[in-house]
Amino acid sequence: MRTYVLDPASKTPLYEQLYRALKEDLLSGAIAGGERLPSKRALAEHLNVSRITVENAYHQLLAEGYLVSRPRSGYYAEALEAMPRPRTAGMARPAAAAPTPPPPSAGQFPYSIWAKLMRGVLLDRHDQLLLPPPNTGLPDLRQAIADMLRRSRGMEVNPDCIVIGAGAEYLYNILIQLLGRENTFGLENPGHRKLRQVYEANGVAVRPVTLDSSGVEMASLTASGANVLHISPSHQYPTGIVTPIGRRRQLMAWLGSRPDRWLVEDDYDSEFRFAGKVIPTMFSMDAIGRVIYMNTFSKTITPALRISYMILPEVLMDRYQRLLGFYSCTVPSFEQLTLARFLDEGYFEKHVSRMRRHYRLLRDQFLTLLRQSPLAGRMEIQGQEAGLHFLLKLDTALPDETVERRLADAGVRAAGLSRFKTGPAAEADRGRVVISYSDLAEADLPRVIRLLEGLVQAE
Amino acid sequence: MRTYVLDPASKTPLYEQLYRALKEDLLSGAIAGGERLPSKRALAEHLNVSRITVENAYHQLLAEGYLVSRPRSGYYAEALEAMPRPRTAGMARPAAAAPTPPPPSAGQFPYSIWAKLMRGVLLDRHDQLLLPPPNTGLPDLRQAIADMLRRSRGMEVNPDCIVIGAGAEYLYNILIQLLGRENTFGLENPGHRKLRQVYEANGVAVRPVTLDSSGVEMASLTASGANVLHISPSHQYPTGIVTPIGRRRQLMAWLGSRPDRWLVEDDYDSEFRFAGKVIPTMFSMDAIGRVIYMNTFSKTITPALRISYMILPEVLMDRYQRLLGFYSCTVPSFEQLTLARFLDEGYFEKHVSRMRRHYRLLRDQFLTLLRQSPLAGRMEIQGQEAGLHFLLKLDTALPDETVERRLADAGVRAAGLSRFKTGPAAEADRGRVVISYSDLAEADLPRVIRLLEGLVQAE
Repeated sequence: MRTYVLDPASKTPLYEQLYRALKEDLLSGAIAGGERLPSKRALAEHLNVSRITVENAYHQLLAEGYLVSRPRSGYYAEALEAMPRPRTAGMARPAAAAPTPPPPSAGQFPYSIWAKLMRGVLLDRHDQLLLPPPNTGLPDLRQAIADMLRRSRGMEVNPDCIVIGAGAEYLYNILIQLLGRENTFGLENPGHRKLRQVYEANGVAVRPVTLDSSGVEMASLTASGANVLHISPSHQYPTGIVTPIGRRRQLMAWLGSRPDRWLVEDDYDSEFRFAGKVIPTMFSMDAIGRVIYMNTFSKTITPALRISYMILPEVLMDRYQRLLGFYSCTVPSFEQLTLARFLDEGYFEKHVSRMRRHYRLLRDQFLTLLRQSPLAGRMEIQGQEAGLHFLLKLDTALPDETVERRLADAGVRAAGLSRFKTGPAAEADRGRVVISYSDLAEADLPRVIRLLEGLVQAE
Repeated sequence: MRTYVLDPASKTPLYEQLYRALKEDLLSGAIAGGERLPSKRALAEHLNVSRITVENAYHQLLAEGYLVSRPRSGYYAEALEAMPRPRTAGMARPAAAAPTPPPPSAGQFPYSIWAKLMRGVLLDRHDQLLLPPPNTGLPDLRQAIADMLRRSRGMEVNPDCIVIGAGAEYLYNILIQLLGRENTFGLENPGHRKLRQVYEANGVAVRPVTLDSSGVEMASLTASGANVLHISPSHQYPTGIVTPIGRRRQLMAWLGSRPDRWLVEDDYDSEFRFAGKVIPTMFSMDAIGRVIYMNTFSKTITPALRISYMILPEVLMDRYQRLLGFYSCTVPSFEQLTLARFLDEGYFEKHVSRMRRHYRLLRDQFLTLLRQSPLAGRMEIQGQEAGLHFLLKLDTALPDETVERRLADAGVRAAGLSRFKTGPAAEADRGRVVISYSDLAEADLPRVIRLLEGLVQAE
C-alpha cells in the first residue's frame, strides 16, 4: 500500500493533503487506470488518520471523476486520456458546480449590506457614476471578479478578457455575433430551454446533443455536426449531472482536433455545490484557448440585479474589440461599482456560503423525508449534489402536465423532464420531474411529500 | 385675408392659438397647397397681434413642413397628401426633435437629485429591489414614460406596449429578432454608424437610402427594396435634417401600401429642439400600427445610465410576448424605480429644459462667432435647429482626416460627413464636418473659431 506523508500541523486539512497526493498519482499514472484503491478503513489505518479523512478525499476524487465507485467492490482509478496540463495556477479552494434557473429566494439577499455599499458608492464615486463605463465593463469590477475567481475557484483570469453584460441572455446574443452565425451550436438535450430559445430567436443552427450519466455523449456530439458546444459541466440543468474529469478531457480532445471548435462553459449557479470539493472549470483546463466561461450574479445575489460576465480566450477578446467593440456596456456604472465592493470586501463569498448552508439543510431534510416516506421504493433521485433543484423519478402513470400542475398548485416549482427535451417525448421520461426547492421552507416539506405520495397512488 | 379669433385671456399663448388655427386650415385644404400666405406684418396688423406672434406661428408651421419659405417672396402652403388623421389625442406641448451621439456633458447631470431619489428608493422600495422586474420593465416606469410622453410630446401611449431595455443597441438586437431576419432594413445614408454596425453584426440585409433636404428620398427608398425603414425624422444624424410633414405623409403612404412594411422612428436626443414647437412623432401619425418608436435616457440624463425603451404597435407587442417573452428585462429594478420617480416628480422635464437653454445659448454663441468671423463667406451651416451637433461645410481642400484630427487635438468632437456614408466618398462631401459642441465651454469658442479659420486658410 502506498504511503503518503501528511502533516497534521499544516493549515491545509488532512483530507485535502491526501486528496492532492492521490490526485498527483492518478494524474501521473503512478496509480494506473482501472487499479483498485485500498478500502477507506485500510488506508486510514495505514496512514494513521481517521476514516472520515480518507472518505472526504475519496469523495472529492469521485466527484471530480478521478475515481469510480463500484458497489460492494470499492474504488477504482478512472482511465484518463493524455492531455495538456491545466493552465490554472493552483488547485481550487471552496465553492463550485451547478447551473439551474431557480434563483435563490429573495429573503436570502443581504439587503442591508447591499444598501450600505450603494450609499457608499453614491458618496464616494460620483465622478464615475456620470461617465459611461468602458465597453467591456468597469476595470474595478473586472478585477474584483478575477480576484474572486482566483480565491474561490482557483481560476487564473486576465481581467482584460472579461466582458460584463446585462444578464446571460444578453451575452448569449453577443456570443452568437462574436463566434459567427455560420456556426452550428450544440446544446444539451435535455437542457435549459431558454438557451435554445435565444439561439432560435437568432436564427442560428442548433443541434441537440444527447447526455449519458457523465454529461454530453461524445458519439452524439460528433454525429450532431456541431462545432460550438454550449454546456454546463459543473451541474447540468435539469439532470444535475456533474461531468467527471475523464469526459472533460474527451471534450478538450474534441475541441483540439479542429480549429473551428469552441466550448461555452455555462457555470451559472455553480456556487451551490454541497458535496466534496470544487471540480476545476474547463476554462482552467483549457491550454489551447477554446473555452469561453460564463457566469451570472443574478442567480447568486438577486435576480433583480442583471449582471453577468463572460471570460474570453485572448484570441476571441481581440476579435470582440475589433468586431463588436462598438457595443456600449449594458450595465450601469452604479451597479458595477456596488458589486465590485461587494466582491472585494468578501461579502459575496460570505453570502454564498451562508446560502449554501441554508440550501444544503433544506435539501437534506427534503431527501430524508422522501426516503422515510412510503415513496421510498417508488422513486429515484438524481442530481442532488449541487444546485437548487434535483430530478425526481416518480412511479406514476399521470401525465407530466398533471404532475406539474398539482405541484404548482401547492407552491412547488416543478417541470416534467420532457419539457427540457427536443424531439418527441420518450416513455422513459414519464414521471421524471425537476423539483426546484429553493423557494420552499422547512415547514412546507411534509405537505409536499404527502402531495407526492398522492401522485404516486393516484395512478 | 382670413380672420382668426384669438383670445388674449386664454392660457394658450397667442402664437399657439394662431398656429393651431392656421394648421387646421392647411390640413382641411381651406388654405390650398401652393397658396401664398399673408406677410407676417400684414397678418399681425390684420389680427391686431404682434409680429413676433405671427413669426412664431409661421416658424412652427415651417418646422413641421406645413409651410415653405421662399427667399424674398414669402410663405407658401406645402402641398399635402391625403392621409388618415393622426391618432394622437391633442397637439404636443414642449420638447422635440434630434438624434445624435454626442451625450450631454457630465457636468449637467442633476446628481444630487438623482442620488436623493436613489436613497429614497433604497428606503421605500426594497420589496421590489429583490424581485426580478417583469420582462418588459416595471409598470411604474412604463406608466411614468407614457405620462411624460403625453405631457411633453402629446403622444398617446399604452404603457403595456412599452419595452424597457439596457440601451438602444440592445433594443435594436431585439427588434431584429422580433421583426425577423428575413427583412431588408433600410438605413439613412449618411447615417448613424453604430446602427449599421448593429445590423451588420446580426448578419441581416441592410440597404442605404439616400437623403434629400427633407430626409429619406422616396425614390431611393423604393429602389432599395427595404421593407423596414429605420430613421430619425425628428433630427437626422448627422445632417440635422428635420423631416417635414409632407414627407412624413409620403412615408406613411409607403408603409400602408404593403403589409410587410415597418418603420422604426428613432427619436433619441429629440428633446434638444431649439426652434419652434414640437413636430408630432410619426408614431402619433400612425393610424395603421406600423411605426415603432424608440428613445433613450442615456443621451438626456447621463450615458452612465443604460435605459432605453421602444413602443410597439399592439400587433408587435403580442408577437413580442409570444416569441421573445422569455427574455428577462435587462435593466435593474433599482434604476427603473429611480427613473420612474425622476419622471413622475417632473425632474426630467426640468432637467431637459435647463439643458436645452444651456445648449441653445452655446449654439447661438458659436454660430454668431462663426458668422462674425472671416469664415463668414467660406462656410455653410446646416441642421442647427436641434440636437447637440451641426453640419459645417468648410471651404477647404484639406482631407477630412486632417480636419478631424486638428479639431480633435483642440478638444472638439468632429467627424467628416463621408464617415457616415456607405459607398465611395463623394467630392461634394469634402470639408463637410459634423461638429458636436456639447462638450465645449463658452470660453473655448474663440479658440475653436480661430482653428477653423486656419483650416480654411491652410488649403
